[in-house]
Amino acid sequence: MTATLIDGKAIAARMRADVRADAEALAAAGWVPKLISISVGDVAAAELYVRNQHRQAEAAGVAFESRNYPETISLEQLTGVIAGLNADPRVNGIIIQRPLPGHIPVKALQKAVHPLKDVEGMHPASIGNIVYNDLTLGPCTAVAAVEILKTLPLKMEGLDVCVIGHSEIVGKPIAFLMMGLGATVTVCHHMTRQVALHSRAADAVFVAVGKPGLVTGAMLKPGAALIDIGINRTADGRVVGDADFDSCAQVAGWITPVPGGVGPVTVAILMKNAVLATRMQMDHYRAAFAAAV
Amino acid sequence: MTATLIDGKAIAARMRADVRADAEALAAAGWVPKLISISVGDVAAAELYVRNQHRQAEAAGVAFESRNYPETISLEQLTGVIAGLNADPRVNGIIIQRPLPGHIPVKALQKAVHPLKDVEGMHPASIGNIVYNDLTLGPCTAVAAVEILKTLPLKMEGLDVCVIGHSEIVGKPIAFLMMGLGATVTVCHHMTRQVALHSRAADAVFVAVGKPGLVTGAMLKPGAALIDIGINRTADGRVVGDADFDSCAQVAGWITPVPGGVGPVTVAILMKNAVLATRMQMDHYRAAFAAAV
Repeated sequence: MTATLIDGKAIAARMRADVRADAEALAAAGWVPKLISISVGDVAAAELYVRNQHRQAEAAGVAFESRNYPETISLEQLTGVIAGLNADPRVNGIIIQRPLPGHIPVKALQKAVHPLKDVEGMHPASIGNIVYNDLTLGPCTAVAAVEILKTLPLKMEGLDVCVIGHSEIVGKPIAFLMMGLGATVTVCHHMTRQVALHSRAADAVFVAVGKPGLVTGAMLKPGAALIDIGINRTADGRVVGDADFDSCAQVAGWITPVPGGVGPVTVAILMKNAVLATRMQMDHYRAAFAAAV
Repeated sequence: MTATLIDGKAIAARMRADVRADAEALAAAGWVPKLISISVGDVAAAELYVRNQHRQAEAAGVAFESRNYPETISLEQLTGVIAGLNADPRVNGIIIQRPLPGHIPVKALQKAVHPLKDVEGMHPASIGNIVYNDLTLGPCTAVAAVEILKTLPLKMEGLDVCVIGHSEIVGKPIAFLMMGLGATVTVCHHMTRQVALHSRAADAVFVAVGKPGLVTGAMLKPGAALIDIGINRTADGRVVGDADFDSCAQVAGWITPVPGGVGPVTVAILMKNAVLATRMQMDHYRAAFAAAV
């Protein structure tokens, strides 16, 4: 192995310390950041994630409350719940846990969350702001992946970047974020004729597809950074990314492990968004109430 | 010259005929589409554009009213004007003409326009919807450029596309629109090390930078489509695009002229957005008033 392993847990721990300081400053001003997690139906599917978020929230000085609604709840009732949370001054951020039952379209819920409480960065207005290079609340996984790349000694301006996977919440936002930093970005996906042609020309490769072994060492430029966003469970129960780790580690200059790479940083970004959202709500409140009339 | 010249005026004329039919159907239901153009200060700078929009609106069955405000108007007053237009049932779309005086930030005005009246497709929520592949009101120039490409006998899925220029309102939206169609997209800009490396590999090149002669024939793959979005005025008063037309026309398979390429289609898309916006407002109104209580 020639690649340097990127330590996502260490990056996340540094971020959490910063977030905690911000959260304490907000709490001192009467604004304890608070997140509400909403899950629907079978709790087991999301439970591991929710418990982990809860633990990280506590470590970051962010209050966390988990709510589960029955499988049979209607979309109208759920958007009503969200409208209530939007209007509740004790709530600063709303997390919609996936998976949701088939009759609840996730986008409809994400749009129902007020943009100032959209800690997952999923509202169209949040995504649009990234395009405008006006990052406030960005989608956590995409922001985490980019923040990890920024810890490496690479100049972002002019960097040739290949993003494999063009989902709305990961691949595309990574592309805009990297464009905003001055990189030259190519986005590949399942319709791309020859992914290797693009990935081999890149100084940094992001992969977020959900297919183990999709990226091999032969697809990388020697010394490139590989940020693996995939989370896949193998038949024998291991968790692996989208890269064939062994062959990639022989060629890449830096590589994220799975688990322990993008995952922990994603949760740290969620907490960072929680304090950002709380600060924006505080500013909004102060602007609205500053004048006596 | 080997390239086929793309006739933007003919494409625009066909679009306008469709828009006119839609506008007449809306008018018959009590919803005559109406645009308000807002310009600030010196009228001369935008006058040519405004007059052209007015003429095209008439041809498309869309009502058009131009308002000019004095150079000295404050941002607060202007956003107040826009709030009034948002609330006015006789107004279906608001156009903010550029340039604006230095003390009026264009983004603040674009954000003030209600997303359902955002016929220029500039609101962050409109841009975010493109990312989500949920195109309703898209930024006119970007949509026009992509619509032109779609008239050619090329399969969009898997097409290798190079976008030169990464502005929020042209380059980036073209990139998302093309990704949404299944193309593999690379976005180049002033920080890209070697633009030619990317453009020569592309089946279609979009250029929107504002530099005459930026793209030459040597930078193109033989037979590629070249969509030139630049509008530049030369020292001797001619209007030219960003491509060196003569050398590009020797190599490209299709090429847009400037003027007469993307320009007329952009105005046709503005009118298409006007009827789309009117239809969305009608649906919104009907949903709100359908129930008697």
